Amino acid sequence: MKARVTVTLKTGILDPQGKAIEGALRSLGIEGVASVRQGKVFDVEVETTDRTRAQSLLEQACDKLLANTVVENYRVELI
Amino acid sequence: MKARVTVTLKTGILDPQGKAIEGALRSLGIEGVASVRQGKVFDVEVETTDRTRAQSLLEQACDKLLANTVVENYRVELI
Repeated sequence: MKARVTVTLKTGILDPQGKAIEGALRSLGIEGVASVRQGKVFDVEVETTDRTRAQSLLEQACDKLLANTVVENYRVELI
Repeated sequence: MKARVTVTLKTGILDPQGKAIEGALRSLGIEGVASVRQGKVFDVEVETTDRTRAQSLLEQACDKLLANTVVENYRVELI
């Protein structure tokens, strides 16, 4: 079973990488972008076909490795 | 208008970061993950409310900065 895990910074957490991208876009002449925030995406293939088990496995993976839950949110989508 | 841009590696392009994550998950005792591929996500706020203009602006941003179109695919979703 395939899944996509999206990890994004929580609201209020500063994102210097996003700010750098905003600046770079402006200096490339791309105007009209008000803000950018960068996150990560993981395309995961899990061995189980049980959706509940897959969801719980991926949440465990996020809590332990993929996301820093102090400053990041994550979302698991089973495909 | 808000948009989400997702940048992922093209099929066939090696992903050493994804492989490292697979290994780390195993060593943390999380079994059942067959493969991981890592990508990037950008949450962008654009100033225009015209969907066509927003789409074209974001495609330009991807082609020029956000994605390396030699090895990466990108997808723009207007929210």
